[in-house]
Amino acid sequence: MDQNKANDRLYFASDYMEGAHPAILQRLLETNMVHSAGYGLDTFSESARARIRRACSAPEADVHFLVGGTQTNATVIGSILRPYQGVIAAESGHISTHEAGAIEAGGHKVLTLPHTMGKLDAASVADCVKAYREDANHDHMVMPGLVYISQPTEFGTLYSLRELTEISRVCHEAGIPLYVDGARLAYALACPDNDVTLADLARLCDAFYIGGTKCGALLGEAVVLPRHDFIPHFFTLIKRGGALLAKGWVAGLQFDTLFSPLPGKNGENENGSGGSPLLYEEIGRTAIEAAGRIRNALFEKGYDLPFDCPTNQLFIAVDRDRKEYLEQHAELSFWEKLADGRTVLRICTSWATSMEDVDRLLAVL
Amino acid sequence: MDQNKANDRLYFASDYMEGAHPAILQRLLETNMVHSAGYGLDTFSESARARIRRACSAPEADVHFLVGGTQTNATVIGSILRPYQGVIAAESGHISTHEAGAIEAGGHKVLTLPHTMGKLDAASVADCVKAYREDANHDHMVMPGLVYISQPTEFGTLYSLRELTEISRVCHEAGIPLYVDGARLAYALACPDNDVTLADLARLCDAFYIGGTKCGALLGEAVVLPRHDFIPHFFTLIKRGGALLAKGWVAGLQFDTLFSPLPGKNGENENGSGGSPLLYEEIGRTAIEAAGRIRNALFEKGYDLPFDCPTNQLFIAVDRDRKEYLEQHAELSFWEKLADGRTVLRICTSWATSMEDVDRLLAVL
Amino acid sequence: MDQNKANDRLYFASDYMEGAHPAILQRLLETNMVHSAGYGLDTFSESARARIRRACSAPEADVHFLVGGTQTNATVIGSILRPYQGVIAAESGHISTHEAGAIEAGGHKVLTLPHTMGKLDAASVADCVKAYREDANHDHMVMPGLVYISQPTEFGTLYSLRELTEISRVCHEAGIPLYVDGARLAYALACPDNDVTLADLARLCDAFYIGGTKCGALLGEAVVLPRHDFIPHFFTLIKRGGALLAKGWVAGLQFDTLFSPLPGKNGENENGSGGSPLLYEEIGRTAIEAAGRIRNALFEKGYDLPFDCPTNQLFIAVDRDRKEYLEQHAELSFWEKLADGRTVLRICTSWATSMEDVDRLLAVL
Amino acid sequence: MDQNKANDRLYFASDYMEGAHPAILQRLLETNMVHSAGYGLDTFSESARARIRRACSAPEADVHFLVGGTQTNATVIGSILRPYQGVIAAESGHISTHEAGAIEAGGHKVLTLPHTMGKLDAASVADCVKAYREDANHDHMVMPGLVYISQPTEFGTLYSLRELTEISRVCHEAGIPLYVDGARLAYALACPDNDVTLADLARLCDAFYIGGTKCGALLGEAVVLPRHDFIPHFFTLIKRGGALLAKGWVAGLQFDTLFSPLPGKNGENENGSGGSPLLYEEIGRTAIEAAGRIRNALFEKGYDLPFDCPTNQLFIAVDRDRKEYLEQHAELSFWEKLADGRTVLRICTSWATSMEDVDRLLAVL
Repeated sequence: MDQNKANDRLYFASDYMEGAHPAILQRLLETNMVHSAGYGLDTFSESARARIRRACSAPEADVHFLVGGTQTNATVIGSILRPYQGVIAAESGHISTHEAGAIEAGGHKVLTLPHTMGKLDAASVADCVKAYREDANHDHMVMPGLVYISQPTEFGTLYSLRELTEISRVCHEAGIPLYVDGARLAYALACPDNDVTLADLARLCDAFYIGGTKCGALLGEAVVLPRHDFIPHFFTLIKRGGALLAKGWVAGLQFDTLFSPLPGKNGENENGSGGSPLLYEEIGRTAIEAAGRIRNALFEKGYDLPFDCPTNQLFIAVDRDRKEYLEQHAELSFWEKLADGRTVLRICTSWATSMEDVDRLLAVL
Repeated sequence: MDQNKANDRLYFASDYMEGAHPAILQRLLETNMVHSAGYGLDTFSESARARIRRACSAPEADVHFLVGGTQTNATVIGSILRPYQGVIAAESGHISTHEAGAIEAGGHKVLTLPHTMGKLDAASVADCVKAYREDANHDHMVMPGLVYISQPTEFGTLYSLRELTEISRVCHEAGIPLYVDGARLAYALACPDNDVTLADLARLCDAFYIGGTKCGALLGEAVVLPRHDFIPHFFTLIKRGGALLAKGWVAGLQFDTLFSPLPGKNGENENGSGGSPLLYEEIGRTAIEAAGRIRNALFEKGYDLPFDCPTNQLFIAVDRDRKEYLEQHAELSFWEKLADGRTVLRICTSWATSMEDVDRLLAVL
Repeated sequence: MDQNKANDRLYFASDYMEGAHPAILQRLLETNMVHSAGYGLDTFSESARARIRRACSAPEADVHFLVGGTQTNATVIGSILRPYQGVIAAESGHISTHEAGAIEAGGHKVLTLPHTMGKLDAASVADCVKAYREDANHDHMVMPGLVYISQPTEFGTLYSLRELTEISRVCHEAGIPLYVDGARLAYALACPDNDVTLADLARLCDAFYIGGTKCGALLGEAVVLPRHDFIPHFFTLIKRGGALLAKGWVAGLQFDTLFSPLPGKNGENENGSGGSPLLYEEIGRTAIEAAGRIRNALFEKGYDLPFDCPTNQLFIAVDRDRKEYLEQHAELSFWEKLADGRTVLRICTSWATSMEDVDRLLAVL
Repeated sequence: MDQNKANDRLYFASDYMEGAHPAILQRLLETNMVHSAGYGLDTFSESARARIRRACSAPEADVHFLVGGTQTNATVIGSILRPYQGVIAAESGHISTHEAGAIEAGGHKVLTLPHTMGKLDAASVADCVKAYREDANHDHMVMPGLVYISQPTEFGTLYSLRELTEISRVCHEAGIPLYVDGARLAYALACPDNDVTLADLARLCDAFYIGGTKCGALLGEAVVLPRHDFIPHFFTLIKRGGALLAKGWVAGLQFDTLFSPLPGKNGENENGSGGSPLLYEEIGRTAIEAAGRIRNALFEKGYDLPFDCPTNQLFIAVDRDRKEYLEQHAELSFWEKLADGRTVLRICTSWATSMEDVDRLLAVL
């Protein structure tokens, strides 16, 4: 593989361009010949579940390991909703735009609401539910049966604890569950601006998933259902959706590793790891620190950042010349074309971003 | 991990109880930090596609990598059928029994036919199609729109080339595509009794999949569609079904390895690997040789083998005492209870079965 | 319309070849210009519901009027089942064979069981549920979530009260609802051999429908859910299934008429109509009396009746010559071809069969 | 039924509050005892098809009779779309709002676009398709596979021939079929402002339906597919959707009547009825004339008409006092609450509106 060496190019296009954190590969290697039960009934998955329950302060939680984000959203949402219900989401939500109609394939409408930088606010959720209930024809309409939000959002923004608490309150007063898509949750948790912990998610939501694919795993998303048996027969529903891994431990073992304390580290975490930060926290921190350094440089150099994103995604609006220059030196991600002719590019850091790469990018910028 | 050492126990319960063939893990390790495009658009997947096309003598084939068997069946079958159609399968077929209704979840009926040791025969397929066509009420019925078979079957039996050719002929005369589930295809291909090659499958079927999960991969199934664009927009259909891997190369790289020639081996294969057998062939051979030795011992020792299975699954009917004795020494798989009170147990070998394990099992038997 | 006069031909092919009982047309005519609320919220439908509740001795029952049989089956079954469940039915059940996959279109498998003359027996239902529960892999299988039977069956046979009670007991011990398709229920209720009343159905089943289309209405089926709110939001589920009539009273008014006492009749009924039989009972009686006379004649004349059917459908096995002769004189319905070369024909009577037609048919036979 | 006499009240709430045009009831009465083939294979339906083909100048058209609007939309749309496709519709479209998720129940997303008074414009359709095609991620998105519009719209507005031609051009350049919901088509066709004929619809659209339920029939919608076999196996798809009427002639006969020339009338029509207007045209004309008289009165009396609707629906914005006054004297339909506290009420005329009722309403206004 000299493909690596040829890579003089800088890669900041996405957070799922590399394999897995080395600690995960190491565990896969060490346990490769262990005989394990299939379908997530193995001891690695059991251990991972215990660690996640602890990290979430949710001792009764059901934890299931699925493979990818769209699959997880479709399976969880389709399992919670009844046929006469739909799911409320931001117009910009992943399920609204980039999941090829997976929710509708399960028979449910996505009830979209306007958003601010990817975020729903509690008042608009409350208004939507109220409008439905007061509509004289609501028996002819799709009933809101679930609220879907992402932490961080598609735009890399974060719900504050106050905002999340408010949405949770609105949902539960209306008798509607709340589900959080945490595809990039590590980058939220590690963000200095963030005040929402895993325990807060477990306390305020009815279902959420802890992203693995974009946060250092080869693949895998951990669905957390804080109340036991919140979704009856979820195992069979996962199977029916084609989402059940035969070698379930391939996902379970990765989460067991992600939620293990880092060897030889001590410090600030409070997530039940006895003092050491968890690998999942460390992975987030790496990306957030890299993003912080780039953000500072962008501000210094006078770049226009159209969205204010505290996590691992940075957006810059550039003119054609700048775009061409940047694309010569680094792989960034096209986001959108602005009305004024400029282009918004996304710079994305990850667990795999090295400080050396950041330095080289800063030199380019 | 001393879990390995503790394993004095013998494991013959299944062919997906261990991780991946070491060569696969090695490749994952070597390429871990390579920046790759997502969703199977990477160079590893492209290379794997080229190797599979070559091994199948199907230069125009579309090849897609999915994660697991139920997912693959549901995605392929749901993508080929039109809403007014169903899929013909054996009553014992995996889609008929053990996929939790995944085909019906996509809106389609499984039209079941009786089987002989897991196999459909061409005449009963032809009769089923004829009965549908001649039924005066067939516009009120589900139209057969696809035939599903497995090679090897649920019972470990094999279609001969003559049988497969005959089913293919019946299907194509009726204008109905033929799809083959190859979850354990390596064990069919390596079987001395087998006369159906990958090229035969590509020539006689409209779609089939080459199993990875049960044949030495961590996960992954390679869907082969011999005619380009046989399923329009299949990429989007995969995404819609939640079956699209973000890090697609995790599956692609494994198949690239499985379909690479073994270094330092020369020999009998004709699958375009320039003389050396492919890893996929070697994996099958290991399991088949182990199964062969066990089969011979079973015959010698007078065990009752109710099904005649030439592949990596062996079935023995034992009384209660024998069952208890065997279960003390080895992990086998419960298959079914017979009317005469005896139990059928399955002995399953795999790529991970060592000759040492076989010797120990023979001593137990 | 001299199409009527041209009809020298005898019609015994089916029980839905004519319009509606004249009393129904009369009511439609009389009420045509009454302004009514839509969607079944009108006073005619309300009155029909009250009459049906009375006839079923089910004062708490929810009653909904749908349009046709397949629609009713798909809507009721799809509304009761959870996504991980399927419906148990006879292999010969209408939902298993002649509804074009409507149940599967809603995402559910039909779990078929062998039948005797169209009937399931309680033991085989119990065995099916037991086999599912005891199967070590049942989490990978479709859970039986409903039992579907027809009264009368596709073959015109009847469940006795003892048989129905036994099936009901098995279902309720297993926690599985029981649903009865009563497309031809009038002909069961009017049959001298029948001992299952509407009140029995309401007591023993969780859902059933009283057929209108085949029993004298232009269209319409009355779904009876004996326990209020057994299917939450059923109105919206009906709408979602495209099964909600805008002019709901067109169905409601017909059932109001069918469940009204016949003017000027006194007699044997006990269905809350104050002595007079209901029109629905009278309609059944007409067809059953006609069928009885034909049955007697068939026996006398030595016809071979392969199934023993006490209701409005009679089956005769005839050789080719007899078949041609009969088809010259009367329109009968092809049922099936026997292995011995003979053909089974169906003779079907209805509310619209006149004694004059019966006399003419007897002359032909 | 003295319910009629008690009706001193004025009814202008909706156009489906009464039964059927008397000519339809008359035909049902006359043909009640005619023996007919089921499922729309009867001679009345055949005659209706011929008349509709003639009225549409579409000699090759397939014509199917379904029962209601939501059912028709779900069946047609679900039959045209492939699983990876969705349907473009106005945010205000019936399928977007008031069909309880029937389109999503079939597995498809409704891709909503902003509207002007219920109408889509060709440019926004073109932009939507272009945005999809140019989006680098469109393989992860739902492909626009059909355009849905209504004539008249939910707001009673009309597409002009120029507008419809433009939308049709955009659709066909993009290879996307165009489908028109004509639930109230009679009221469009009869409108003096209208310049879109049935022949135009047949020429410019790939599918449309001619509404019966809201235009004088007891029930029934006629789906017109101008190109033969545009939807293969549509009969079975109708059955699968629970939308196939057993007594199909109940719908067919009504359309045969609606598309028959009025006896004893001569005049302006060009729809192949040899000089006499068709009943369907007459029905529209009655409602439009009534609406015209009311519209003039509303303008004269200074009512505020927030939408400019040329068809049989009129909208007035009134304050609370006026609302209460009007509701004492007439049944109107609540439309929406305005931000300024006023209420929008709908006044709806129909085939059943008498000039006497209009006079009485004018007196009230």
